[in-house]
Amino acid sequence: MKKNGKVFVVSAPSGSGKTTLCRGLLKAGAGLYPSVSATTRPKRPGEINGKDYYFMSKADFQRWIKQDKFLEWTRTYGWYYGTPKKFVGELLKKGHDVLLSIDVKGAMKIKRLYPGSVMIFIKPPSLRELKERLKGRKSDDTKEIKKRLRIVNKEMAFAGRYDYIVVNDSITKAVDALKAIVVAERRRIKRRGKNE
Amino acid sequence: MKKNGKVFVVSAPSGSGKTTLCRGLLKAGAGLYPSVSATTRPKRPGEINGKDYYFMSKADFQRWIKQDKFLEWTRTYGWYYGTPKKFVGELLKKGHDVLLSIDVKGAMKIKRLYPGSVMIFIKPPSLRELKERLKGRKSDDTKEIKKRLRIVNKEMAFAGRYDYIVVNDSITKAVDALKAIVVAERRRIKRRGKNE
Repeated sequence: MKKNGKVFVVSAPSGSGKTTLCRGLLKAGAGLYPSVSATTRPKRPGEINGKDYYFMSKADFQRWIKQDKFLEWTRTYGWYYGTPKKFVGELLKKGHDVLLSIDVKGAMKIKRLYPGSVMIFIKPPSLRELKERLKGRKSDDTKEIKKRLRIVNKEMAFAGRYDYIVVNDSITKAVDALKAIVVAERRRIKRRGKNE
Repeated sequence: MKKNGKVFVVSAPSGSGKTTLCRGLLKAGAGLYPSVSATTRPKRPGEINGKDYYFMSKADFQRWIKQDKFLEWTRTYGWYYGTPKKFVGELLKKGHDVLLSIDVKGAMKIKRLYPGSVMIFIKPPSLRELKERLKGRKSDDTKEIKKRLRIVNKEMAFAGRYDYIVVNDSITKAVDALKAIVVAERRRIKRRGKNE
């Protein structure tokens, strides 16, 4: 029987560079498969359906919720985001390690569903830096930024529930650290009630 | 106050390539400080006193035991091996991470003295392979090899008490894995009763 894959969960306050780091990790040859989230938010320029997200209508998303087709789902900034069950389950059964890039609440749900998940929290080098990054995003307006910063504070409070904290002070270093965590965790011995 | 360093313990059955891997890890720029063991066994060609080992007389070693100057010590194959307390303690106080390359019994003692130690067990790719490696060492005679293989079996039984298992099927890959463990562990969140 083939050994099931491992779930790697990456969370970060909005604007911490999570998307960039996850892309870097996937390219770094760590052998991870990305879980593609579903969302109702509009496609940003350059985003590809089925790769960056599965872009869905609100009606379709709500139908999937009722049909229990999500591992976790949430509504932030007015948009729905969710992790399709089938997709992740199939990858794990094939023995593939899956990368889930999700928010703190979703991460906690995944930890309950897959207790062996490796939980990684990405921290911005500083809150001031994070503010600058959020301001740099031209697609976001001032009201949106303020709203996000309030959420950031709430999200930061969850860091202690993760297994690892990676500070994103340099993209290269942070990607190296993420890859190291994947390589190391594959060699970690499972212990009941310890890491499971 | 400066944060204390972390102890990384590497153990392996005799002939698993532990010495080569530890040298590789130290050279890989992981920022580890090696703990130099003391021993009463004769110096092998190319070994340097104070670098590979502190070579001591039996009388001196036994005096140090009485003076409680070792973190752990053992007698194998008729020779004494020990980890000098002072040396490791000073490095940790300075905030340096220390690499201890020691046998399974010594490793268990270290785990009790420093519960936060990261325990790594190196496995040979196969016992047949290990036999070949031991035979390849011209300095060992047949009787010695048989004795070692008996001990190998005993040592292998300890693997489950470690945090990580690294299979030495390729030196490069194994050194990369060791480095990844060091990088990852530095980002690991300590939890009472979990990893401490």
